[in-house]
Amino acid sequence: MLAVMKWDELAHEPCSMARTLGVLGDRWTLLILRDCFLGVRRFDEFEERLRIARHVLASRLKKLSQAGILAKMPYQERPRREEYRLTQAGLDLYPVIVGLAQWGDRYLCGGQGPAMQRRHRLCGHVLDAVLTCPECAKPVIAHEIAVEAGPGAAKDFAVPFARRRG
Amino acid sequence: MLAVMKWDELAHEPCSMARTLGVLGDRWTLLILRDCFLGVRRFDEFEERLRIARHVLASRLKKLSQAGILAKMPYQERPRREEYRLTQAGLDLYPVIVGLAQWGDRYLCGGQGPAMQRRHRLCGHVLDAVLTCPECAKPVIAHEIAVEAGPGAAKDFAVPFARRRG
Repeated sequence: MLAVMKWDELAHEPCSMARTLGVLGDRWTLLILRDCFLGVRRFDEFEERLRIARHVLASRLKKLSQAGILAKMPYQERPRREEYRLTQAGLDLYPVIVGLAQWGDRYLCGGQGPAMQRRHRLCGHVLDAVLTCPECAKPVIAHEIAVEAGPGAAKDFAVPFARRRG
Repeated sequence: MLAVMKWDELAHEPCSMARTLGVLGDRWTLLILRDCFLGVRRFDEFEERLRIARHVLASRLKKLSQAGILAKMPYQERPRREEYRLTQAGLDLYPVIVGLAQWGDRYLCGGQGPAMQRRHRLCGHVLDAVLTCPECAKPVIAHEIAVEAGPGAAKDFAVPFARRRG
């Protein structure tokens, strides 16, 4: 009988995705981040949008702040009021948010299409973003990727299930 | 006092990202998917890798199958044994997985770098994938995207917080 993994242990897994989920994997956290990218910044606005219990919202915002994803910034001095803004680390999560949204656009919207779309201001087109290799400019496709030990791997580290990849 | 949102209601939100999280947002589900992309296919392998309770694993695999992300395929006839394989819809989640992993590579690995890296077989380079607009070939940056009503929006639908965007 194997010991069951605790969620907090993810931070120590030799896998960046597991570590990221240790920070973001709570069910509400990614929805809070979605709202941040829509421009939501204040506690009461998050509460109204998400219909989430105040103590749950407070703990998730605290966790995101401690992780350096959101920063608390004053927007009023007397009385002092603060709002939550995405840091650069937070803004760098945008590909994850867009990836989740585009998958839903494709598979969960039925025939009528999505209720919201993203427009790329730089070129004016509706965005259907593609994950791309900057070296060869080709789209990234799962079957064309090999996972291998990286620079931070322990000496005895073997990529799980690498034997199966051909 | 607002009614608290139930997780199951996400499927009916006019937001593709919320709907996707309704399918994937459970804390273990994205870790199961990560393992699928590493080549894990069999129940006992998932159990060993994730150290997750069998009934939890069974329910998550069932949910992923019902959502059309995994397909159960026989790999042995007598006795009949089945394994879980990514469908095309499942494979299309790869950008989300890579996005989560790359963010962790950047922010959660300390100085020594990640334990695992991805190599793009097409061109031979270590992958540092970039979300790109296929129309103008520029990287997608959060501040350069405008969210607007899409083709599936109800007549009275207004993009939340659109007033705040410049």
